Amino acid sequence: MKALVYTGEKELTYIEDAEMPVLRDGEVMVRIDAVGICGSDLHAYLGHDSRRPAPLILGHEGAGIVCGADNAGNRDLDGQAVVINPLVSCGHCSACRTGFENQCGAREIISMAPRQGAFAEYVAIPKRNLVPVPEGMSMTTASLAEPIATGWHAVTKGAKLITRPLVESKALVYGGGAVGLAAALSLHAQGCRQIFLAETNELRRETVKSAGICTVFDPLTNPLVASNAIDLVVDCVGNKHTRMGSSDAVKPGGVIVHVGLQDSIEGLDVRKFTLQEVIFTGSYTYTMQDFHATVEAMHNGALGALDWIQERPLSEGADAFDDLLNGRIAAAKVVLRPEK
Amino acid sequence: MKALVYTGEKELTYIEDAEMPVLRDGEVMVRIDAVGICGSDLHAYLGHDSRRPAPLILGHEGAGIVCGADNAGNRDLDGQAVVINPLVSCGHCSACRTGFENQCGAREIISMAPRQGAFAEYVAIPKRNLVPVPEGMSMTTASLAEPIATGWHAVTKGAKLITRPLVESKALVYGGGAVGLAAALSLHAQGCRQIFLAETNELRRETVKSAGICTVFDPLTNPLVASNAIDLVVDCVGNKHTRMGSSDAVKPGGVIVHVGLQDSIEGLDVRKFTLQEVIFTGSYTYTMQDFHATVEAMHNGALGALDWIQERPLSEGADAFDDLLNGRIAAAKVVLRPEK
Repeated sequence: MKALVYTGEKELTYIEDAEMPVLRDGEVMVRIDAVGICGSDLHAYLGHDSRRPAPLILGHEGAGIVCGADNAGNRDLDGQAVVINPLVSCGHCSACRTGFENQCGAREIISMAPRQGAFAEYVAIPKRNLVPVPEGMSMTTASLAEPIATGWHAVTKGAKLITRPLVESKALVYGGGAVGLAAALSLHAQGCRQIFLAETNELRRETVKSAGICTVFDPLTNPLVASNAIDLVVDCVGNKHTRMGSSDAVKPGGVIVHVGLQDSIEGLDVRKFTLQEVIFTGSYTYTMQDFHATVEAMHNGALGALDWIQERPLSEGADAFDDLLNGRIAAAKVVLRPEK
Repeated sequence: MKALVYTGEKELTYIEDAEMPVLRDGEVMVRIDAVGICGSDLHAYLGHDSRRPAPLILGHEGAGIVCGADNAGNRDLDGQAVVINPLVSCGHCSACRTGFENQCGAREIISMAPRQGAFAEYVAIPKRNLVPVPEGMSMTTASLAEPIATGWHAVTKGAKLITRPLVESKALVYGGGAVGLAAALSLHAQGCRQIFLAETNELRRETVKSAGICTVFDPLTNPLVASNAIDLVVDCVGNKHTRMGSSDAVKPGGVIVHVGLQDSIEGLDVRKFTLQEVIFTGSYTYTMQDFHATVEAMHNGALGALDWIQERPLSEGADAFDDLLNGRIAAAKVVLRPEK
């Protein structure tokens, strides 16, 4: 099959003879129609993710069509348009039993060994990881479900931890990429009416502004948010500077949800967290319930027009990575499309 | 009046002509009968707390008898035996309105300017900060309410954040002083049946063991707790080493409650917190509801015999500080008693 393979630091190679994935029990093959590029793909491409050594097919934000039978011969999903939840959990540990499959100790994700990713014609995936694409939704839009579910999960987690409802609360989001924008859209959809979003890239700021649901600012030149003012911070960047900003902005008893993970050293104000009872929580991907809820919210219009996408052919994926790393793309999401 | 005054780094001076406190609106004078020494008093005594510069009367764990009228002439509490909640909040901000007076931005605490502390014959305190001492409880025991309420609050906060009930959960407490022991007793009283407590001082380990409610160990020589095994960590020490231990011990989706604050640099594993959705929260003192609930639990026997006290005369307070700092005291709490 055709695939865009990460072959070494800052090197992506488009090939036409990649090995087909092999079906395990309960799995089907999905022919990929649209697959987004995630910040974690860029991170791996730069050689910064020890969990993703080359050679590897990256990509985990896929939508496509189920092809053929599962490995027991059942064709119940054959031809179905689906969004892929790329996180494969064991299904029977205490985390899975309590609906937190994303905390499963045996979890795997496509684009990390032993599973190849979705920058390819085909991906093998358990049937229980598939969500049908609703009537009328394009496959490109459907591929946004994964990053949006990440924002939706973070906001849902934060909303459970703050003292008062979102509609009474002030929220600050770091990052105007797909997850940051999705967090802002999820905050708005879940009732929040005072949303601030910090983004350093001017092109991205314009894209977020056009969604019309939050106050967008450049934290480097315009420290818009006062100290101790924010009920809920959703940090979709996750570096020392955003953690310092989060620590400063959060109010006593407030909540910081840490989603991004550019680095993991410094930036937290342990003294303030202790004396002011701040809650800091990590947020990793989504549960299957988040995935279903996200697709429904995308479908019913709660998350707006979802028009912040730029499409590229999979074969030109290397150029897209280069443009993204050099800040030349205004769209919050670049979606690659395998040639048919 | 008589008072033990912190007069400079590592210097406590017992004097007999300290100025009497002045009543503000709604306040009464309490003649102190018993007052515990807290780790934060030791911290200030060593010159490590910039919020508590000398000269200052330290001490905030007081119990005593209300003397006379409030400053409007009402004698409704005159002669009442009371425990003092030393945290004075504004009563009308959003934190106070939602029952989190401990997060009030205008909070004051006795033993920090402008309020003198309770290592003295008298303290001025708002009437709403007083809890009656139940029938049959000694004043020395009553003075434990403050450190126990700190542990009770931390455990109550942790219990709300963990996924499953305490009775299903494993808990780890760092520190076998009064707050650590109180946290373990509160965990037990609230239903937890798998409690581990780490303490480096052998004398203190023996005291905690005799309470009979938890497995006590020395974390320096006996790493009893496995990685990723604990649902709820209550860190009543709060230094780099206990934060590293907490980060390692906590399981995916688990909770760390940070109560102690020996230092505030390093020790948190931000990468694990993010990828494993660990919740880290600060815990500061207690609410008025925690204070009432604690006195009730002390009274009804839910917290055991409360016999881990050593009494000393207030005039010999300097020696008690010295013994505590040199680890020569097995009791989890030293209580000073002003001479009558």
